[in-house]
Amino acid sequence: MDVRGGTTIFDSVPLDALRRRTSQKWRRYPADVLPMYVAEMDVPQPEAVVRAVSDAMRAGDTGYVHGPGYAEAIAGFAAARYGWDVPVADCRLVPDVMLGIVEVLRLVTDPGDAVVINPPVYPPFVQFVEHADRRPLPAPLGPDGRLDLDVLAAAFAAATTDSRRAAYLLCHPHNPTGTLHTAAELAAVGELARRYGVRVVADEIHAPLVTAGRGEQDGARPRFVPTTTVIPSAIALHSASKAFNLAALKAAVAVPGPDARADLARLPEIVLHGVSHLGAVAHTTALRDCGDWLDAVLDGLRHNQRLLSDLLATHLPAARWAPPDATYFAWLDLRDVPAVRDGADPARLALDRGRLALNPGPTFGAPEGVGFARLNLAASTATLEDGVRRLASALA
Amino acid sequence: MDVRGGTTIFDSVPLDALRRRTSQKWRRYPADVLPMYVAEMDVPQPEAVVRAVSDAMRAGDTGYVHGPGYAEAIAGFAAARYGWDVPVADCRLVPDVMLGIVEVLRLVTDPGDAVVINPPVYPPFVQFVEHADRRPLPAPLGPDGRLDLDVLAAAFAAATTDSRRAAYLLCHPHNPTGTLHTAAELAAVGELARRYGVRVVADEIHAPLVTAGRGEQDGARPRFVPTTTVIPSAIALHSASKAFNLAALKAAVAVPGPDARADLARLPEIVLHGVSHLGAVAHTTALRDCGDWLDAVLDGLRHNQRLLSDLLATHLPAARWAPPDATYFAWLDLRDVPAVRDGADPARLALDRGRLALNPGPTFGAPEGVGFARLNLAASTATLEDGVRRLASALA
Repeated sequence: MDVRGGTTIFDSVPLDALRRRTSQKWRRYPADVLPMYVAEMDVPQPEAVVRAVSDAMRAGDTGYVHGPGYAEAIAGFAAARYGWDVPVADCRLVPDVMLGIVEVLRLVTDPGDAVVINPPVYPPFVQFVEHADRRPLPAPLGPDGRLDLDVLAAAFAAATTDSRRAAYLLCHPHNPTGTLHTAAELAAVGELARRYGVRVVADEIHAPLVTAGRGEQDGARPRFVPTTTVIPSAIALHSASKAFNLAALKAAVAVPGPDARADLARLPEIVLHGVSHLGAVAHTTALRDCGDWLDAVLDGLRHNQRLLSDLLATHLPAARWAPPDATYFAWLDLRDVPAVRDGADPARLALDRGRLALNPGPTFGAPEGVGFARLNLAASTATLEDGVRRLASALA
Repeated sequence: MDVRGGTTIFDSVPLDALRRRTSQKWRRYPADVLPMYVAEMDVPQPEAVVRAVSDAMRAGDTGYVHGPGYAEAIAGFAAARYGWDVPVADCRLVPDVMLGIVEVLRLVTDPGDAVVINPPVYPPFVQFVEHADRRPLPAPLGPDGRLDLDVLAAAFAAATTDSRRAAYLLCHPHNPTGTLHTAAELAAVGELARRYGVRVVADEIHAPLVTAGRGEQDGARPRFVPTTTVIPSAIALHSASKAFNLAALKAAVAVPGPDARADLARLPEIVLHGVSHLGAVAHTTALRDCGDWLDAVLDGLRHNQRLLSDLLATHLPAARWAPPDATYFAWLDLRDVPAVRDGADPARLALDRGRLALNPGPTFGAPEGVGFARLNLAASTATLEDGVRRLASALA
């Protein structure tokens, strides 16, 4: 991957070009704010995706989505990267991961039922579950950022006491912590789910973004373990949108475990009406033809994880953070920073004093996210340096 | 508009190029089937839209949607074409028209409530309403294809007898009949809605596709009258996707009437998460910069309406059909065809014997659609001629 003279792929789009983008990251705040929030990467699109979308537009190929192409592309990618045999014929296209999660939750729970989640977690998990007339039931991650099986067992017990049916919305890898659940953890989750009769729905949108175990210190090689390979009654949601920076072109695939095929088969046909054909075209091309581009992103993220560690050690030693196993986020523990200890929200301080936009920790769940902030690592060296300096001076 | 030597814009894409498209219209059936079903037009995309989407991809502008640009484009188009002053600040972006309708129905009704519809009507009206846990309550159009106000009043009375809140899902212009509701009809609907306390939700996706009143016989000039300009408590859904053949790139805008602003303001912020940024980019460009292209489509549709009349008179005189005021559909009344009088579904016969794909009438509601079929007029002269010959021989 040619990174055009920069250190990583993230150095290949100049800041002034980024500022001409019209998406939320670059338009929500005034130009003096440096945006390091929201899940958009500062990368060029892979050439093959640009071409596939442009060619489809040129051909007027702008009708309704049809056929198994996207699910086949997910399967090809999953076989190569995770050694996972995806059951293409049993998959279903959905408009995007969150709308797919809602549709799957409607298959396995009823209105008013509990849906267990693990705060701190991606804020839409609460919002979409509530909008679907289900009750989010928090089972916080442990202090180590990993699943706490005792807490999870208690939540499953509570969920099934007062729900006719209950579900567990697993974030794997976990956003915002970047935690990659292990096969052993997933097996324990499966055992709990079986014991309590809780259905597992797994958001696996960050699966392609595992950064651990490669690069300089190629040791244990942590690897993404697909939830449905360990929990047969689970249903997982996959999409190219996060790893290939395609939020603008939505599409996702619901993949059932061996024991969930009949459930997913009940998904109404009309759910397919909401799926973007060009989204499927773009995602299919990304998954099939853009592995080198993704590897450059992963290399860049490993570089940026090291860079952020160094920058924090230099400029903000009170911040606690270690590179996660996955995602392009840094979930910064700023509770030891004096200003934060006094009760201020670090993202608020960063925005007001440093003109730096981060995702506020409490939006991922309170009290779990209080004193934290999520920073987007998919940025250039210059942006990371500027961002950490802004953060350090805002929190000083 | 250069139509590349053909008679209309629909003659500008050769059949072999259409067959290379990967959308539903061209891939659902084998190659010996001529597809004249589903809402995809056999047109090239406007150059400005191709360029806008390609440029955004090239710039990596592929993040989350942001800002009022799409609503502003709807407003500019509506001001120019309908003389309608759209309240941009009160509009809300939604993923597409049907998902937007569902979200709006959730604002103004409760689970189990009745939603009045007018069969024969776009089949997803029933399917999405049921999937949203509401009850479709049919108030069939009259034999003239127009709203029957007595039937509507009876349906409103029934709906409000057994629902806490009730809604009326108006299709304006009406799909499949192409009926354009008049200001007087809308006023009568508004009076009934007020009397019974029924909320009107209007699908106005076909509004740009009014073909009546221009061209050769420029007489009464029927014009699209926006529902919310007559019924202040209504909420309307608009999108460029139908008129500009952009089903592949979804996005839509909910527009409240003056008395519905507070209701639409209750739409949860997360609904915006499902909106495609590139959909909004494509639609915005289409509405702003592609009026000439749309006028060429309208000219082509008028031509094709005359052509279809002639072809039916020649090859299938038992078919009853008159050019509608709007949409690119022909809702063919084939009840006088002997084979259909004997109980066969004409679209079934067309597919099995003529290898011609139409939308079966009964899917738009039974008994209203029995003996009918919907044919897509957005096709070349050659396709229309071939299609009518296939239909005539299949029904012979």
